[in-house]
Amino acid sequence: MRTMNIHYDAIIVGGGVIGSSIAFHLSKRGKKVLIVEKNQLATKASSAAAGMLGAQTELEKDSPLYRLARKSRAMFPKLSQELKELSGIDIELVQNGMVKVAETDEEMSLLQSLVPLQQKLGEEAEWIPSEELRTQEPALSEHIKGAMSIPNDGNVSAPSLSKAFAHSAVALGADIQEYTEVYDFIKEENKVKGVQTLAGRLYADETIVAGGAWSEQLLKQAGIQLNTYPVKGECFSVKVEISPIMRTVFANGCYIVPKLGGRLVIGATEKANTFDESVSLKGVSRLMERATKIIPELENAQWEKAWAGIRPQTEDGYPYLGRHPEWEGMSIATGHYRNGILLSPISGWQMAELLDGKELDDHFRVERNSIRELRI
Amino acid sequence: MRTMNIHYDAIIVGGGVIGSSIAFHLSKRGKKVLIVEKNQLATKASSAAAGMLGAQTELEKDSPLYRLARKSRAMFPKLSQELKELSGIDIELVQNGMVKVAETDEEMSLLQSLVPLQQKLGEEAEWIPSEELRTQEPALSEHIKGAMSIPNDGNVSAPSLSKAFAHSAVALGADIQEYTEVYDFIKEENKVKGVQTLAGRLYADETIVAGGAWSEQLLKQAGIQLNTYPVKGECFSVKVEISPIMRTVFANGCYIVPKLGGRLVIGATEKANTFDESVSLKGVSRLMERATKIIPELENAQWEKAWAGIRPQTEDGYPYLGRHPEWEGMSIATGHYRNGILLSPISGWQMAELLDGKELDDHFRVERNSIRELRI
Amino acid sequence: MRTMNIHYDAIIVGGGVIGSSIAFHLSKRGKKVLIVEKNQLATKASSAAAGMLGAQTELEKDSPLYRLARKSRAMFPKLSQELKELSGIDIELVQNGMVKVAETDEEMSLLQSLVPLQQKLGEEAEWIPSEELRTQEPALSEHIKGAMSIPNDGNVSAPSLSKAFAHSAVALGADIQEYTEVYDFIKEENKVKGVQTLAGRLYADETIVAGGAWSEQLLKQAGIQLNTYPVKGECFSVKVEISPIMRTVFANGCYIVPKLGGRLVIGATEKANTFDESVSLKGVSRLMERATKIIPELENAQWEKAWAGIRPQTEDGYPYLGRHPEWEGMSIATGHYRNGILLSPISGWQMAELLDGKELDDHFRVERNSIRELRI
Amino acid sequence: MRTMNIHYDAIIVGGGVIGSSIAFHLSKRGKKVLIVEKNQLATKASSAAAGMLGAQTELEKDSPLYRLARKSRAMFPKLSQELKELSGIDIELVQNGMVKVAETDEEMSLLQSLVPLQQKLGEEAEWIPSEELRTQEPALSEHIKGAMSIPNDGNVSAPSLSKAFAHSAVALGADIQEYTEVYDFIKEENKVKGVQTLAGRLYADETIVAGGAWSEQLLKQAGIQLNTYPVKGECFSVKVEISPIMRTVFANGCYIVPKLGGRLVIGATEKANTFDESVSLKGVSRLMERATKIIPELENAQWEKAWAGIRPQTEDGYPYLGRHPEWEGMSIATGHYRNGILLSPISGWQMAELLDGKELDDHFRVERNSIRELRI
Repeated sequence: MRTMNIHYDAIIVGGGVIGSSIAFHLSKRGKKVLIVEKNQLATKASSAAAGMLGAQTELEKDSPLYRLARKSRAMFPKLSQELKELSGIDIELVQNGMVKVAETDEEMSLLQSLVPLQQKLGEEAEWIPSEELRTQEPALSEHIKGAMSIPNDGNVSAPSLSKAFAHSAVALGADIQEYTEVYDFIKEENKVKGVQTLAGRLYADETIVAGGAWSEQLLKQAGIQLNTYPVKGECFSVKVEISPIMRTVFANGCYIVPKLGGRLVIGATEKANTFDESVSLKGVSRLMERATKIIPELENAQWEKAWAGIRPQTEDGYPYLGRHPEWEGMSIATGHYRNGILLSPISGWQMAELLDGKELDDHFRVERNSIRELRI
Repeated sequence: MRTMNIHYDAIIVGGGVIGSSIAFHLSKRGKKVLIVEKNQLATKASSAAAGMLGAQTELEKDSPLYRLARKSRAMFPKLSQELKELSGIDIELVQNGMVKVAETDEEMSLLQSLVPLQQKLGEEAEWIPSEELRTQEPALSEHIKGAMSIPNDGNVSAPSLSKAFAHSAVALGADIQEYTEVYDFIKEENKVKGVQTLAGRLYADETIVAGGAWSEQLLKQAGIQLNTYPVKGECFSVKVEISPIMRTVFANGCYIVPKLGGRLVIGATEKANTFDESVSLKGVSRLMERATKIIPELENAQWEKAWAGIRPQTEDGYPYLGRHPEWEGMSIATGHYRNGILLSPISGWQMAELLDGKELDDHFRVERNSIRELRI
Repeated sequence: MRTMNIHYDAIIVGGGVIGSSIAFHLSKRGKKVLIVEKNQLATKASSAAAGMLGAQTELEKDSPLYRLARKSRAMFPKLSQELKELSGIDIELVQNGMVKVAETDEEMSLLQSLVPLQQKLGEEAEWIPSEELRTQEPALSEHIKGAMSIPNDGNVSAPSLSKAFAHSAVALGADIQEYTEVYDFIKEENKVKGVQTLAGRLYADETIVAGGAWSEQLLKQAGIQLNTYPVKGECFSVKVEISPIMRTVFANGCYIVPKLGGRLVIGATEKANTFDESVSLKGVSRLMERATKIIPELENAQWEKAWAGIRPQTEDGYPYLGRHPEWEGMSIATGHYRNGILLSPISGWQMAELLDGKELDDHFRVERNSIRELRI
Repeated sequence: MRTMNIHYDAIIVGGGVIGSSIAFHLSKRGKKVLIVEKNQLATKASSAAAGMLGAQTELEKDSPLYRLARKSRAMFPKLSQELKELSGIDIELVQNGMVKVAETDEEMSLLQSLVPLQQKLGEEAEWIPSEELRTQEPALSEHIKGAMSIPNDGNVSAPSLSKAFAHSAVALGADIQEYTEVYDFIKEENKVKGVQTLAGRLYADETIVAGGAWSEQLLKQAGIQLNTYPVKGECFSVKVEISPIMRTVFANGCYIVPKLGGRLVIGATEKANTFDESVSLKGVSRLMERATKIIPELENAQWEKAWAGIRPQTEDGYPYLGRHPEWEGMSIATGHYRNGILLSPISGWQMAELLDGKELDDHFRVERNSIRELRI
């Protein structure tokens, strides 16, 4: 392992979209970084994602997360060009908007009330009544009572984005080491000096844990208890000659994302507290039922495949982006739940800021809730 | 192509389960045979099948097909040993029986009336009332009103059976040529002398067309019109730790077949007149709905995959097993629809009998209905 | 099949890169076209290709094919943008050049003599001596005596190009019908009116056969004998963290093409007169031997996979682009051998010109050599 | 997780062939056991193995391992039947023997000296001179100087054996929990009470670590240092119509194992101290070179695929089969290196004996060498 003899500026534990974005942003600032990944790059939740950039989709009130998401979404157009230039990889950014549909009067009232809120916060949003909606999106079912249109939420290819971050980082000098599991940290007094892997020790000034749902386990082994838990999400995809919808359709219990080349991704179930990556018959059958209820002609689409990803959720729903409260040389970036793709640009940028000595937003600090040391 | 220089006793067009069984039975009689397959052996309907040996399952009255099916089913135990000895391949014969369940009063009356008929025809069958059924098969839904039990219908692994036939034939001296498409016959006066392939001419005393749903096209190109049509069948499979059922469960619109190693195969839809091997969302979602209606706990099973096969159906529902009505040196074995796996042993044996000069059952003769010459 | 009731301007038989380019170019001119594909779009030679745009690489003298290739290569930059806009698909155009290396004195003399010829014909080319070459491409083996550099030959993703053509055509109104085999033409007197498929008849004013290596068979069935033959090409790919080479390296018996994301494609063997798509141990082992001779450190690369494609070669090495010599309403575009990806833009454009009544280059006319009617 | 509420007789950490055999043997003795597997059953080294039962193949002198291997090999015929009855799965036991070929005079002398040793130890073995060898196995290269024939070494399907053990255990009442990573033990004073997994705690009277190459890491986290290290082995497979060899051929640097249905598995490289499961170009190309040197006509075989597995080797080459030296309720079964398939029956049986209070062979005791506590 040639990487053994290098002392890195930073080691990033985890080669998913967050870890790869951090590697990219640090490499841009001239740092020599290493991504250590226990399997292969971008093979877990980062490639399972539908790739929605739903900054406004889930808003119900203003919040630090909402502001973080909007900032991150705004980074995509420039980032897309930058990653293409460095890695040659196209992240398939599509800025076609979303409609969040109402199937009941309650849903309609709620969505209608969110429109002025979005506008007040400086974002575009508008209510589209039933008849107009069906003119714009004729494939939507007749029972739909209207929709909140969000013209600025788009989507990317999640696997392409992850690969583009990683290969752009490599183009800027980063190293990658796959099939290497980190099981502990190298610590001297209060300072983390690197990581212990099954294949030996690796040294760096800074160690950043970006292991998604698996971060908690690693940190637990090192004596830290994060307040995160894994949430499985199941998805499936179909193929059509022409997409029946122009934009992502978001409904209660299901979203339908048009991708390039006649694919549609339908997601996602939510099952908490499991690392089991298998897809249940129940999960896929409920998604099918919801999707064909919303867009009846999907029935005629061609089945492609089903899959699942394990996402890290936190107690308060906010990601962790910050330094370890007591140990020097160690930071954490995880807990992005179902916003990992959307938040990856800003997360990578913020972690680079952090290592450059900037203060980050308090709301995402690691010690904001019950983090505690398990072992002394 | 070394096979170019050999004059074969017989060339079999089609490397599915029927063609491979014919090759096996002819090789056993000392004939030098060649299987010509346009793709790879056993990759189409023969490997898509659930492998049910449902000789009695579909009976509603005595018929030549019913008798053929029973004879074929009876061949499996000895065949299973023979193929294992020659090829080493286990066809996974399971003789665990089937239950055909009634969900309505009409279905119950019908099934109850079939029991004495089966018995009169010399087969075992019995009516199991609701309570007793649920003692035997507790996973069945409460709404099921009872079932006709058929203890002697079992199942095999369809892909293993196809491969075992082919590799046993090879062990006995047969040749196989994959990726070779036959597009016409070599004919001298009234006698077929072999086939024309994209890779050249192949010669034999006898040419047997066993191309499944694709036979009609080949024969059409040679000026013959069979009365067959393709019927797509879609299936899916799930994994469980322990099978919730002991036997195959057959219901209206769906069957559930327990396979080795915790797999269950659920089939099959029927869509006529298409060669499109894709799986529709509608097809798989209806199968799921039916299957979980019959066995509610299937919901918790792990999704594996979905697939489709194209089966050849005939106008009267009987396969074609016989000589060409006018051309010498040419025979046809196709039209087995959803009984291809079950009927493969007897079909192979009968074609071997035919080439040895025996007369076959008139009901399966090629000229029994509107076959006609398209070209002179 | 909804397409049954439409009378098309043109039906294109074959959904590979050539057929899809024709569909795209005809759709741009407002024609209503249908692609009929017997399997799935872009699954044969079109997706097996390494995607080199080697317009100058194989030149040994000026020729109509050389001029066609240069014209086609020049179309890629604009085409890349156009396809991205219409389909969202990035064809991964990389214009990084090629080096054609000399391993012997004979090869060196030959290549050195080609440099002025290329320049005379208006193309960039230059001889790079051994030492300078190894400065530019340090991974090349020491035994290499120099190389002809061709700065303007690049590469694309062959599967992406095929899909981008097809989906751009669809965006412009084209229809696609997969899993549909054409086995004959509909002809009235001297005029072709459409095609006969396994799933019924399809009608159009113009029928264009673009079936790659399978075109000959289809045309043979319709009574025409093209002078083409299939040539199998085997390839394999590896993964590396950083590509050891900047440009495509072309040597005697092997080329090595750097692709995005750390992949290298190594090709290609040539085996004539077979439709067998399997990969031989010999083929892959000789490619490996050649590739590691040229770039020794490839040894440490990670094995990915091997595959093969069947390409249509013609007697004089020129593709067929033109009208049927006697039948009205029928054209042919095949015989592109290992230049299918490179020639796809110009081939599509030329066929569109042809249908608009223009005359094409005589060198590619269908009747230029021994085409003949087999059947009257 | 329903298994949460059960107190098991034994928990087995690792669902490979060793863990599954232990589960089977314990279940036969009426124990309620649970296999906990971090990915899916039998997906790592256990399914990567070629399945050779080479008890005599590697012998160079009598040893406890040699005697263990012979005992284990003798268990296969009866085991094969037993597993087939319980699980329906055929392990594809073939008792066709092996030839260990000599390519040099040195190899010849060595092998000739081993024949009387084998015989003295009560095993069949014989020297076959060159000419006779080539009569028996005409596909072997002319340069081979003869071979030691071992008629009683055969092979099985490694994936089928693993699955058959696991599903037979399930048929006898065992539970399986996939996608569940154990990261620590539950310990009260000196007694292990179960395991801590990412999904919660699991309790049992006995905990058996059978995690292959990953055992060391788990035990290290629990404060124990085994003397094992991972060794990657790369293999590839080809397809042929008829196997060119009747028996497994074992040469310096490569073995060639004929499997059912015209497959041959060629293995295996050895690369120590890595968990990287990728296949290197160098590895696969050297195996190819060796294999075609031994059997030249393999060149014409059809490439299938390449893969790698990570096997646990120990310092003295003996597996660990025994109790933890200090902790109660904890045992270890790992370190089988490239004999895992061969040794799985005896290993399962011995661990069952151990839990029933029997003493095992001292040579395989865990504390035989430098095991030590890392953490107190």
